[in-house]
Amino acid sequence: MGGDNGPSTMVQAACQVLSKYPDLNLFLVGDENQIKSNLSRLEQIFLTRVQIIPTTSMVEMDDQPSKVLRTKTDSSMAVALQLVADNKAQAVVSAGNTGALMAFSRKILTMLPDINRPAIISTVPTDTRTSRLIDLGANVDCSPMQLYQFAQMGAAITMANDNSIDKPSVALVNIGTEAIKGNEQTRKTHELLCQSSEIDYKGFIEGHEVYQGLVDVIVCDGFVGNVLIKASEGVVHMTMNKLLREYQGSLWRRLLAGLSASVLKSFRSNVDPDQHNGASLVGLQGVVIKSHGAANIRANMAAIEEAMREANYDIPAQIQKRLAELPAETLENS
Amino acid sequence: MGGDNGPSTMVQAACQVLSKYPDLNLFLVGDENQIKSNLSRLEQIFLTRVQIIPTTSMVEMDDQPSKVLRTKTDSSMAVALQLVADNKAQAVVSAGNTGALMAFSRKILTMLPDINRPAIISTVPTDTRTSRLIDLGANVDCSPMQLYQFAQMGAAITMANDNSIDKPSVALVNIGTEAIKGNEQTRKTHELLCQSSEIDYKGFIEGHEVYQGLVDVIVCDGFVGNVLIKASEGVVHMTMNKLLREYQGSLWRRLLAGLSASVLKSFRSNVDPDQHNGASLVGLQGVVIKSHGAANIRANMAAIEEAMREANYDIPAQIQKRLAELPAETLENS
Repeated sequence: MGGDNGPSTMVQAACQVLSKYPDLNLFLVGDENQIKSNLSRLEQIFLTRVQIIPTTSMVEMDDQPSKVLRTKTDSSMAVALQLVADNKAQAVVSAGNTGALMAFSRKILTMLPDINRPAIISTVPTDTRTSRLIDLGANVDCSPMQLYQFAQMGAAITMANDNSIDKPSVALVNIGTEAIKGNEQTRKTHELLCQSSEIDYKGFIEGHEVYQGLVDVIVCDGFVGNVLIKASEGVVHMTMNKLLREYQGSLWRRLLAGLSASVLKSFRSNVDPDQHNGASLVGLQGVVIKSHGAANIRANMAAIEEAMREANYDIPAQIQKRLAELPAETLENS
Repeated sequence: MGGDNGPSTMVQAACQVLSKYPDLNLFLVGDENQIKSNLSRLEQIFLTRVQIIPTTSMVEMDDQPSKVLRTKTDSSMAVALQLVADNKAQAVVSAGNTGALMAFSRKILTMLPDINRPAIISTVPTDTRTSRLIDLGANVDCSPMQLYQFAQMGAAITMANDNSIDKPSVALVNIGTEAIKGNEQTRKTHELLCQSSEIDYKGFIEGHEVYQGLVDVIVCDGFVGNVLIKASEGVVHMTMNKLLREYQGSLWRRLLAGLSASVLKSFRSNVDPDQHNGASLVGLQGVVIKSHGAANIRANMAAIEEAMREANYDIPAQIQKRLAELPAETLENS
């Protein structure tokens, strides 16, 4: 229910994914009339594999997470998460309020042992490999041990998505000024990551290298990750606007823009962050995928497919296994 | 001497600036032959206002700052800074090694009282106002008091550049997740900035708002600022590459690219971070401008003009005055 345009694109994405994966069954949780009106346009054949769970309350984009925990326990978001907690569903996909999704996930699914709060991980667009950045804003003031856990969680998500990788490569965000080799937190995390045999740790990475596809997993604290990803989105929007403005400079340029329409459209859909999708909440006893509020059908399909891969790989168990393997003495020292 | 292509673009920029400002005199510090060979192409009329200071050693881009302090005290960079320390020049412009420039500036010019290390400030491209971001990587693990000082230094640089502004607007970088209102450092800095009557403090700003031209000065610690600015540069490069690749998809598209050459060139020069310039080192007892190593003539001219404005405004004295006005009780509490 939480997408910018209601459940329309999500329901349509659901039908397309059902058509692609014959073994998939879906719960659609939300306003029954709205869901049915979007379903009616599509093939009835999928209805045997769809179960509508009607709810009457929903979390709004501007609802405060701390409040919804008390007031919206019957919302579509909470009910969907409860299906996972009750082992009726294997994963949740939501295009709604991120803070509320985190808060409800913590409460209803609960965290893995030793984890306090879900980390947020998402792919970053590069020209070559699929890189993932973790954490995108859930955890600030991170300890080295938390950053180490992010690395292992990112490695698990990588393997869920690409079974040809058996030891994901990981890098830690740092700054390159000669005079200072990063902060205290970064130096200590570096030492921890060097000790892990479960990842292929490649050392430090600088801001401009994030988009070069150098490693599978890029680790940073949630403050840095949130600023990084949002600033990048801001740059893309500014850059697209500047390009469109260049093409409006004269009649001839406007004509060129018309002729280049398909190029510009394809460029836009390639770089527009609103169309890239989705983020995973990790560290939970369950799989939760956050789809972008403005996501189109294709982007929502990608979010559902991500949920399927993470459920198939059993992300919670895989992460738990990775975190258990950390030497006890290392734990004590950080 | 430190630019990617030697002193060529800097010397040519110097001549153009001399022609623009009849009261300006310049020292050109470096290899005499290389400087003269670039000067000879230009009008001799400016030679009365140019003094060449010949040096034989120079700081290389990959020199370690800690080493050059001992080994390259006769480098063009060190000699130029000494001219300011000796009150023979009012400002230094260098396109060389940033870490070395910071280290030599600290040693030769020394810091203002209560400042440990120069902060780095630069403009960020926005569609409307000129915004400046401070710190870009010199200081990590910043205290709230340091961030407060960055705000005041940024305000002084703003006023040096635009005398129509008498109370610069300032915002503090933070993250927007509902669940967590930033980190400890950010919350404390927010309280300090609220108390300053010398700036128009606007509160928090998120990553994507950095490029929207909302305020004159954007404050963050050097770790966040460095990652932010470098990631943004990485995004611009990736975006430009994707656009050029779109235009190579077919013969027709390559033809369109040819027709759009002037649009694409103007777009590129508008967004290419290599052509934006320059950063200021602040908190020193002198004016030091860092020009980009790959800067073209126009960008080097902008760096020299920035140096002139900061010298005219007497940035060190203005910053000193701003920092002295902080209430003593506030100082003690943070």
